[in-house]
Amino acid sequence: MDLIVQKFGGTSVANAERVEHVADLITRTYDKGNNVLAVVSAQGKFTDVLVDKANEINPKGSRREMDVLLSAGEQISIALLALAIEKRGYPVKSMLGWQAGFVTDSNHSNARIRRINTERVQNELAKRTIIIVAGFQGLDRYDDMTTLGRGGSDTSAVALAAALNAKKCQIYTDVDGVYTADPRIVKGAKKLDSISYDEMLELATLGAQVLHNRSVEMAKRYNVDLEVLSSLEDRPGTIIKEEANVEKMIISGVAKDTNVARISLLELKDQPGMAFRIFSLLAKEKINVDIILQSVGRDGTKDITFTVAKENADHAVEILSKSKEQIGCKAVLCDKEVAKVSIVGAGMESNPGVACKLFDALAQANINIDMVSTSEIKISVLIHIDDAQRAVAAIHDKFYND
Amino acid sequence: MDLIVQKFGGTSVANAERVEHVADLITRTYDKGNNVLAVVSAQGKFTDVLVDKANEINPKGSRREMDVLLSAGEQISIALLALAIEKRGYPVKSMLGWQAGFVTDSNHSNARIRRINTERVQNELAKRTIIIVAGFQGLDRYDDMTTLGRGGSDTSAVALAAALNAKKCQIYTDVDGVYTADPRIVKGAKKLDSISYDEMLELATLGAQVLHNRSVEMAKRYNVDLEVLSSLEDRPGTIIKEEANVEKMIISGVAKDTNVARISLLELKDQPGMAFRIFSLLAKEKINVDIILQSVGRDGTKDITFTVAKENADHAVEILSKSKEQIGCKAVLCDKEVAKVSIVGAGMESNPGVACKLFDALAQANINIDMVSTSEIKISVLIHIDDAQRAVAAIHDKFYND
Repeated sequence: MDLIVQKFGGTSVANAERVEHVADLITRTYDKGNNVLAVVSAQGKFTDVLVDKANEINPKGSRREMDVLLSAGEQISIALLALAIEKRGYPVKSMLGWQAGFVTDSNHSNARIRRINTERVQNELAKRTIIIVAGFQGLDRYDDMTTLGRGGSDTSAVALAAALNAKKCQIYTDVDGVYTADPRIVKGAKKLDSISYDEMLELATLGAQVLHNRSVEMAKRYNVDLEVLSSLEDRPGTIIKEEANVEKMIISGVAKDTNVARISLLELKDQPGMAFRIFSLLAKEKINVDIILQSVGRDGTKDITFTVAKENADHAVEILSKSKEQIGCKAVLCDKEVAKVSIVGAGMESNPGVACKLFDALAQANINIDMVSTSEIKISVLIHIDDAQRAVAAIHDKFYND
Repeated sequence: MDLIVQKFGGTSVANAERVEHVADLITRTYDKGNNVLAVVSAQGKFTDVLVDKANEINPKGSRREMDVLLSAGEQISIALLALAIEKRGYPVKSMLGWQAGFVTDSNHSNARIRRINTERVQNELAKRTIIIVAGFQGLDRYDDMTTLGRGGSDTSAVALAAALNAKKCQIYTDVDGVYTADPRIVKGAKKLDSISYDEMLELATLGAQVLHNRSVEMAKRYNVDLEVLSSLEDRPGTIIKEEANVEKMIISGVAKDTNVARISLLELKDQPGMAFRIFSLLAKEKINVDIILQSVGRDGTKDITFTVAKENADHAVEILSKSKEQIGCKAVLCDKEVAKVSIVGAGMESNPGVACKLFDALAQANINIDMVSTSEIKISVLIHIDDAQRAVAAIHDKFYND
């Protein structure tokens, strides 16, 4: 008996009608002769409602109590979905995260899964019971409720699929797959039939908000076949697996990320260890640095420019300004009006002309490039934020329609 | 270190302001040098909201899933209350029913407590942590969520007070104590300083909806001192204990219950075993029978009249009508327009004139009595429902103001 793990996000179970629809999707999969385990998030904006309730009372409460509060959301969803499946006459049982065996560390609000004790789930699956598991939550070794942080339900689903050796892990969401660009921006954006884990990871990091990185990393590690598809439309989505079907396309997607700020340190003394000193200051504050660009030295000084997430920009500037003397730099500049646009594709490696084609597209659109960064399967450029949307369209057009 | 168990109902934690107020009550008790364990219900009408959600999807769902759904309500309350106490700078931990050690049978939606494993709670109390426990819920031996049914949070509180040998169990509610009659009906109803378990049991059964019977029974069994008091007003409530302070009053209260229906079986054959046959039919359907009255036989036939809860009346009539031949009865009549009015008092036993005084009060008010039933500490009369309110006032007046 094959096991299919299906994950349904908050919008998929937002109201009674949606819950009924999800029950249909699950029972249809079951009727095809599969065992089904569904992982569910809290209904619609219910988590936000709970956060508001907490903030009204104590915005600086402990993460332990926040986890107790927030994990109630999924508890409601699993019960409602189980009730809908019961109505259809199928054997079904809902399980809280800990009932499904999720043991995590004690890092409340952003816990890591330590292990999954699958005994209970397996006993139920052996009886052909449909299982509805509360995503996003687990229990630490002190028997305290924990939550897995952003994208937690995706992670729960992939982890269960791995632990139970499921045939497939289907992530139902409000888009019907992974596109070559954001279809809301780029007319003619194409849905991909498949994409590799690495490409998906680059796309996710670069702001294509279909799947959370953690779940893709886990799928890659345990080689779980993922499928992203829409709970509202009845058609295949995008498969994410180790070796994607080699398609004719060189790049698998264009992504933009506007949550970026550029910080420049001017006229640093050109001496060894300078970069280390700067970035260790930021690392100490847990500020992640993305693209780094160092100018060629001139007159015994050099400039270092890098990008950080917008919300970390002020903090980074503050730290570096305080240490200006120590690192011997003249000025710290910050520009929040930037965006990162990237192309991702496993085919890039063997196609040397890709970067050139990208620059061509931007030049034709008269868009100035600030910084460039490349990896084996991705090229990112930093441009002015006002040009971002146009850049994505121009690049997509160049690669897919030329 | 004395332990005070405090229970707060849904209205006491209905919104942020109320939660803050409850946090003040708890920390004030703690500051007096007590350990405090609070048991909390779901916020305001939240349980009803959840029931509505379930009914919209499947009104005939399993009780197992309903328990998963409903127990989310208390989970939200305990977290919010813990957050409010954290804000005040006190050590606090919320605990779900199972984390506080509640093990129940598997009778979902109306589970019985089997035992409470108090180890975790005691460890925390030893550290002077304030503990907030989700009432109404537990876990059965299959690790499934269970709920304790109506009045469940009261029962949770009393059970914990008993298991932890608490000094007192305070039940905070929206009334400030137990009255000699419903103060909304009877002007001049008096608050009792204290009342015995038995009197309270009779009053609760008879419709004085201050405390659920189960919690009073448990308090009696384990000799837990209960106090009913208001979370909104800062004054002593009513103490419920084994030996209430002997008061001058003969009766401790007048109660009315309008959730009653009277069923009459006419012209039954007057032969042995008849009552058994009738009531075993009802027992099989789990229909509780209250007052039973059997007429003296005449012409070889007799009549049997009894009362049931209103919601069971139609079902009882249906069953008995079906078996009319078998039990040899002419007609099954049902009257839902009745009410039961009762007086309760431990002093009754040694005061033979009580019943007479009751009948006198009703006669003066020109209220006809349908049935009478007495126990050692209570007298109940069945009257027309339209007379109920007037009857309570007349009786109260007779006993307290004459």
